[in-house]
Amino acid sequence: MTLLEEIPSFTAESATEFKFEILHTSKKSRARVGKITTPHGVIDTPNFVGVGTNGTLKALDNSAVQEIGLQLMFCNTYHLMLQPGTEVVRKAGGLHRFIHRSLPIITDSGGFQVFSLAYGSVADELKSRGTKKQDGHVLKINEDGVLFRSYRDGSKVLLTPETSITAQKDLGADIIIPFDELPPYHIADLDLKKSLDRTHRWETRSLNAHLANPQNQAMYAVIHGGVHKELRKASCDYLTSLPFDGFAIGGSMGKTKSEMIDMLTFTMPLLPPDRPNHLLGIGDLESIEGCVPLGIDTFDSSYPTRAARHGVLLSKKGPLKIEKSQNATYFAPPEENCPCPTCCKFSLAYLHHLFKANEITGMTLATIHNLHFMVNLMSEYREKILNDEI
Amino acid sequence: MTLLEEIPSFTAESATEFKFEILHTSKKSRARVGKITTPHGVIDTPNFVGVGTNGTLKALDNSAVQEIGLQLMFCNTYHLMLQPGTEVVRKAGGLHRFIHRSLPIITDSGGFQVFSLAYGSVADELKSRGTKKQDGHVLKINEDGVLFRSYRDGSKVLLTPETSITAQKDLGADIIIPFDELPPYHIADLDLKKSLDRTHRWETRSLNAHLANPQNQAMYAVIHGGVHKELRKASCDYLTSLPFDGFAIGGSMGKTKSEMIDMLTFTMPLLPPDRPNHLLGIGDLESIEGCVPLGIDTFDSSYPTRAARHGVLLSKKGPLKIEKSQNATYFAPPEENCPCPTCCKFSLAYLHHLFKANEITGMTLATIHNLHFMVNLMSEYREKILNDEI
Repeated sequence: MTLLEEIPSFTAESATEFKFEILHTSKKSRARVGKITTPHGVIDTPNFVGVGTNGTLKALDNSAVQEIGLQLMFCNTYHLMLQPGTEVVRKAGGLHRFIHRSLPIITDSGGFQVFSLAYGSVADELKSRGTKKQDGHVLKINEDGVLFRSYRDGSKVLLTPETSITAQKDLGADIIIPFDELPPYHIADLDLKKSLDRTHRWETRSLNAHLANPQNQAMYAVIHGGVHKELRKASCDYLTSLPFDGFAIGGSMGKTKSEMIDMLTFTMPLLPPDRPNHLLGIGDLESIEGCVPLGIDTFDSSYPTRAARHGVLLSKKGPLKIEKSQNATYFAPPEENCPCPTCCKFSLAYLHHLFKANEITGMTLATIHNLHFMVNLMSEYREKILNDEI
Repeated sequence: MTLLEEIPSFTAESATEFKFEILHTSKKSRARVGKITTPHGVIDTPNFVGVGTNGTLKALDNSAVQEIGLQLMFCNTYHLMLQPGTEVVRKAGGLHRFIHRSLPIITDSGGFQVFSLAYGSVADELKSRGTKKQDGHVLKINEDGVLFRSYRDGSKVLLTPETSITAQKDLGADIIIPFDELPPYHIADLDLKKSLDRTHRWETRSLNAHLANPQNQAMYAVIHGGVHKELRKASCDYLTSLPFDGFAIGGSMGKTKSEMIDMLTFTMPLLPPDRPNHLLGIGDLESIEGCVPLGIDTFDSSYPTRAARHGVLLSKKGPLKIEKSQNATYFAPPEENCPCPTCCKFSLAYLHHLFKANEITGMTLATIHNLHFMVNLMSEYREKILNDEI
């Protein structure tokens, strides 16, 4: 039987220890340049984390992603549990080997998706009163965890702190996330407090399950509390008292960007500066600009890749809509002086044509550009911090 | 303004002359190994021609296609006329530059698509009696050519021998095709004869339009006559009397593969052996196996790329259906000993997962494999011919 090209496998024996170093903190803000070392290599911070839900960034293969220089990739445990199943990934030798990625990976707990499903279902019910078939839905939420039905095959799946960690051990990502509850946005204060307490119990159980078999993975706690400062503080106080390797900011960030900035301005100083942090699910350009000075180290978002598939290129001059009619005869690269493979080879007119002709190739070329843009943007942020410019 | 990486432009001054050399003819059959030289490089024959209708092979960019070693790419004039318009391609500096391909390209006349549209419309009308909206349809067919409505914007387009050649001059492919009539399969003998006579007049007009401005392109005539041997002979007699650079076999090939083989067995000896030939729109593995011994030099087909997008990999052991359940845990490469980038890096289990998860990336990886398979298959055919094995 032929063998695949070797990808370093995730084994406790061979692996490097997780480590975070701060190389420089800006004189102007809380922004810092750091370096996270993981068993699969280094993540320079601040940095952008590409989202590869099913073990691939959409429209790109993992070799291309590595060539572009994306140092950390985010995969979703919920999706991988249901397809192909985390035990399949374990049998393949872990996620790195299964998807052919030698650089670091982070997985979430599945909590976000399963609770979106729960609250999504309620909304759907109200709107369509049973006229829509629910392919996947939540059957029970209690102290143990969440029981839901797979949207793929209808089977019952129990997601608890322990089963989430087992799944994330199967996947073997470099950084993993404890199971948490995502409360709906419109929640009464008392209920939010109850949800936060449960989240803290679940995160503690997750940490214990993880520490029983650390497998050289690092675990980031998820700070909750919505836009309530006292709850955010309580969450920081409790979770920083436990031996987590880093801290992710989750839960509701507010209705507007300014609410988010306000919450983070309050929350970030409550986290230990010597440990890395991550802002969950936020990675648009405006938010990155606002959050880097607050000391955020990593951002994940599907925005750059999704925008690409919808024909929007990121550029220094703002978003560029490929299908605009004036681009039909723009025979120069989409973005001036961009060194990405797309801009080196293909004109904006050609991309325009590919999108007009509904060619998948257009999505791939746009994704390459946007990912390259993000990698480059974050490198520029690090440079500016080193120069105390932000 | 930033410049794109240089792609050799198509200019009469700099270009090499079109040339065909036969390196070896098998002692066992009419199969031959040859070499077509064009302004954009060499095509070793027999060879497979990938179909890039809109100026891209579906799910792959043209750099990847070149790396795989596809020596000749087929683009469709009909599609490029309607989107982006051939005058846009001309302004871009020709098709090679527009799509960033430095290797040879062949374009057809648009006749095939416009007549499929015409006869397709009739069939659709019979079936659905006006319930389906016809977005694009043929308005008039006469001695001048075909007037039809663009399915894109509803504008009227006149396709004649002269406008087809103008369009193909705009595109600037290395090999171009004269405008012909594609008669429906169920046509009375007398009507087929009439259609053939018109096709010959149209091909003559196409040739004259081409020779008025050769632009260093080569033109292949299209031999018609359906499955009628006397008409095929008449078509060969007439068209080989004109200064075409090569000969394509078009029109109806019969209902079965054996009818096609029978027709080609009769037709091929009627073509001048010192000029290259091409079998239009046929490129499945069984047909290639049957037609190489008859002396066919090039085959174009969208089969390998379309199969890939539908989850079918070509392999020495026959077609491999990626989504078959037993492939979920097949952690070795899809095809044993295949040196393609897909098989070197990714397991069949991962491809299975990507297809199950509806990831575009799966289509791209499968297309890379299938195209590589075809390039390699044709190289093996050449080797066998050189050894007089077929």
